[in-house]
Amino acid sequence: MEIIEGGICAVDGVLASGSRKGKYGVSIIVSKDNTASAVFTSNKVVAAPVIVTKEAVKNGKLSAIVANSGNANCFTGEEGLNDARAMVKRISDKLDIEFNDIAVASTGIIGRRLPADTINELIDESLSTLENSPEASFAASEAIMTTDTYSKEFAVQTTLKDGNLVKIGGITKGSGMIEPNMGTMLCFITTDVKASQEELKNALKKAVDKSFNMVVVDGDESTNDTCLLMANGNSGEIDENFQEALEYVCIELAKMMAKDGEGATKYMEVDVNGALSQEDARAAAKAVVGSSLVKSALFGADPNWGRVVAAVGYSGAEMNENSVDITFKSNDRVVKIVEKGSIIAFDGTKELEIAEEIMKSDEIKIVVELNLGKYSATAFGCDLTCEYVRINSEYST
Amino acid sequence: MEIIEGGICAVDGVLASGSRKGKYGVSIIVSKDNTASAVFTSNKVVAAPVIVTKEAVKNGKLSAIVANSGNANCFTGEEGLNDARAMVKRISDKLDIEFNDIAVASTGIIGRRLPADTINELIDESLSTLENSPEASFAASEAIMTTDTYSKEFAVQTTLKDGNLVKIGGITKGSGMIEPNMGTMLCFITTDVKASQEELKNALKKAVDKSFNMVVVDGDESTNDTCLLMANGNSGEIDENFQEALEYVCIELAKMMAKDGEGATKYMEVDVNGALSQEDARAAAKAVVGSSLVKSALFGADPNWGRVVAAVGYSGAEMNENSVDITFKSNDRVVKIVEKGSIIAFDGTKELEIAEEIMKSDEIKIVVELNLGKYSATAFGCDLTCEYVRINSEYST
Repeated sequence: MEIIEGGICAVDGVLASGSRKGKYGVSIIVSKDNTASAVFTSNKVVAAPVIVTKEAVKNGKLSAIVANSGNANCFTGEEGLNDARAMVKRISDKLDIEFNDIAVASTGIIGRRLPADTINELIDESLSTLENSPEASFAASEAIMTTDTYSKEFAVQTTLKDGNLVKIGGITKGSGMIEPNMGTMLCFITTDVKASQEELKNALKKAVDKSFNMVVVDGDESTNDTCLLMANGNSGEIDENFQEALEYVCIELAKMMAKDGEGATKYMEVDVNGALSQEDARAAAKAVVGSSLVKSALFGADPNWGRVVAAVGYSGAEMNENSVDITFKSNDRVVKIVEKGSIIAFDGTKELEIAEEIMKSDEIKIVVELNLGKYSATAFGCDLTCEYVRINSEYST
Repeated sequence: MEIIEGGICAVDGVLASGSRKGKYGVSIIVSKDNTASAVFTSNKVVAAPVIVTKEAVKNGKLSAIVANSGNANCFTGEEGLNDARAMVKRISDKLDIEFNDIAVASTGIIGRRLPADTINELIDESLSTLENSPEASFAASEAIMTTDTYSKEFAVQTTLKDGNLVKIGGITKGSGMIEPNMGTMLCFITTDVKASQEELKNALKKAVDKSFNMVVVDGDESTNDTCLLMANGNSGEIDENFQEALEYVCIELAKMMAKDGEGATKYMEVDVNGALSQEDARAAAKAVVGSSLVKSALFGADPNWGRVVAAVGYSGAEMNENSVDITFKSNDRVVKIVEKGSIIAFDGTKELEIAEEIMKSDEIKIVVELNLGKYSATAFGCDLTCEYVRINSEYST
């Protein structure tokens, strides 16, 4: 596997573009007659574009995606549905693509109607600049940003077992309202693998469970989450090598989202090992990475491992506090804080000193070893800062 | 029902005291041979005093409570258990009370051993000042504070159906780490009602479910939560009037905790009505009150009702977005923001202006009417502020 340039346009034939006007942006991706699969928000309040796109991907085919930032087109009733359909219709007409082969996605404020004129203007501008280039992928990744502080794209290539070289590229946005079951994240992934609808669906589900579903920024779950995978079939047959590469792409994009959590100054990864079940491992890792107290301690560089243990304790995962090990890591240091339930990093110990140094790093890994079973999970998150509060207390004004 | 002075000492015969030294405090409550019941944290990591007290209340009897602040005596292994037992032993010896009739509770930092000398000194000081007076109740409520900014006590009296006047008094602490299933909250309630162990247990469980279990400050659940109810039986038989009064006391104490949430500048109450089940109503109310985005919006006085709807949507409660009403209230204003899924408070409307005014209040009520069934629940919370982050990024240093 090799990291390559080009984002979604790393895949030959994929056209992309993006344009912005103030807080609004529109991205378009075109790759005709692709096999497609999707994962959506599990929130019971579902934005209009999610309803329209769910319908579109039912037959497992897509030829284009249109996405806007600045307005979520959610809780907008029948008018909102019409607005979402109008976006699709505009692409359908101008590119001569079946209405039902086009996905639409939106991100931004809830409960306000889309500014149709601005969106149409941006759609037309994006349609006129569609191309297969790294710059086009970058423009698409930029146009879907909301409170993101940087755009996010990633691509790899790997050799399939049948000898073919396969490429996978993705762009994503999302920094607040990100939760276990995907916050307002939009993620569009392209590939040239050959796969049935069913194969692609399973591959995406598995990758999302290990990546986007393990990101916690603020525990709020969005109404608009959409992750789309389009495969043009120009390379070889889907296999484990593809799966590994897809998961790698999704995890790298998920990490970028966590690092760009609203107001975040630090990135945190939590590994939980030795759990009795996969579900336990996931629940424990997400509880730690999502704990406001752990997040605040991270911001303050406070090695408050007690909050880590407490979070595992309320996560619902089976645990025995007398068998827990806790290790803190930074890029260049490692220290065991707790071993089999006994504290090593007491006041005045060298271990606590190292833990304090580690907590000052930009990127911290917390490893919780439950020593009960064989299951592991990793969750991705960030610190809780005053800047988070500031951003979210001013959003809609 | 009438609000009265005296906190836990409003009940005749109850002795109390409290003393502090730096960040440590000790409170003692004595009421011999009482029927008792308790509710504890559901965290799988359980502090040593919780283990000791669970054992003590098994027989449904208590004569005294000793509680300390400054150290949670949690994740402290066998030594921690011995430390907790030593606190009980000291009370047992000095007051000549059976070891098993004494409850112990702790709150503070996790993972450090109790400073035995300081705790013993404070126990002795408190033992020497035990008395039945409003001042003694106040001292007890002060000594269990950690990051609380004020002490919390409340008492009422009401007439039972058998004609007897019954009194109920409570003290509580807790401001951070408070979650649906009770954050580090300690609550001690005294009464002179006559009740069996079973009756008392049911009464407390029901009251806690409507009060402390509906408070969300940061979603982290403590390892030390303990709510104890002691009844000396000097008044009449337990009945519905008592239940109503007990719930009132617990709800008032829960509100005080929510108002004193770490760093809080505003208090929020969320009513969910018309839910299909009690569980749905509770889940939806707690999701809204606990949402970091709703809490940040409250801090910023931003009437961002979209976040309210989104939180209901991910709460797991059954909902239909086309039947939802949302109303914002302050002490002197009311405005309907959403009616049957349609937005009323658009940009430029008088309704939005009123909503903005309401959001500037110190106390805000959000009413979500699901219009699906007959179940209601109320949750209690506060805003998310920079001060919360500051407090919790500095706690253990």
